[in-house]
Amino acid sequence: MAHIQVPEGVPGIRSLVMFRPETGKYLYDLAEVLLRGESPIPQAERELIAAYVSRRNECVFCSSSHAAAARCLYGEDDTTVDDVLKDMQAANISPKLKALLQIAGKVQILGKEVKQEDIDAAKALDASDKEIHDAVLIAAAFSMFNRYVDGLASLTPTDPEAYKEMGKRMVQGYALPKPVGA
Amino acid sequence: MAHIQVPEGVPGIRSLVMFRPETGKYLYDLAEVLLRGESPIPQAERELIAAYVSRRNECVFCSSSHAAAARCLYGEDDTTVDDVLKDMQAANISPKLKALLQIAGKVQILGKEVKQEDIDAAKALDASDKEIHDAVLIAAAFSMFNRYVDGLASLTPTDPEAYKEMGKRMVQGYALPKPVGA
Repeated sequence: MAHIQVPEGVPGIRSLVMFRPETGKYLYDLAEVLLRGESPIPQAERELIAAYVSRRNECVFCSSSHAAAARCLYGEDDTTVDDVLKDMQAANISPKLKALLQIAGKVQILGKEVKQEDIDAAKALDASDKEIHDAVLIAAAFSMFNRYVDGLASLTPTDPEAYKEMGKRMVQGYALPKPVGA
Repeated sequence: MAHIQVPEGVPGIRSLVMFRPETGKYLYDLAEVLLRGESPIPQAERELIAAYVSRRNECVFCSSSHAAAARCLYGEDDTTVDDVLKDMQAANISPKLKALLQIAGKVQILGKEVKQEDIDAAKALDASDKEIHDAVLIAAAFSMFNRYVDGLASLTPTDPEAYKEMGKRMVQGYALPKPVGA
């Protein structure tokens, strides 16, 4: 049970933004622009960064749902998402994406953990300032979303099918659910 | 020097949102609603929670600026802000605020660190669900802002007077600065 009285049966962040749409509105707007807005990082890779950071923050709801969204975008038979979540360094991804995930992993620990050499490595692989910016902000934002979802003990489904459905909806857009009673 | 090419001489998050106003807009909107919007937690206490979490995340820019904002609201001669930043448990604040700061400190570590007993302690002191929600979300949001500001190594002023001026502006509102060239 969640730590506060949110609508019953509604999973994860959705229940929290229904409890408090005044703040929820900006959280969904932020997710939408970060994950689906214009960016030099493809949508699939942005969802992957979100899942990777959420997994490191041990947030089952966010890591499962964003992994599902990323799988939708990479394609059903592609194993990239699971490979990265299992062992990022060993995964068969581009060196640039690996460098961005390396930075995201440092951000997950703490901002100061990102060192000049992490940035230099990404830039040597032609990562642009905008790509570095977006990777850092996605990692930082999920360090928020993960804490929000778990800090209030929101409902975390255990059925993998539930996340599969969620992923399909998420890649279509992050829109604020209607508040309670609406 | 910041890790990416942001406007020179502009401190902290301000330089980052000028680099990327598309995402910055929602970050400022979120700060405004969280710290200055309607909430059962007084504005001074919200700025204090932000400073407390930022200090724990070792983010000098955010902790100094939000401490300055909180000092503006508590009043010049009040030592609450510095007492809490020095030793929260020993500070002369209400037991309810102490319980909310305790929850915020757990959120700073990781969402799962918030235990039922932390919530029970706050509720026994008459903390409402909305107060608990807002304390958790402020702590989660600053776990993002801190990582964003430090992860990109944005400019951190060292002059205390700079933060004093910043604090005065912050309590008047969090508004997006004009983008570069505007």
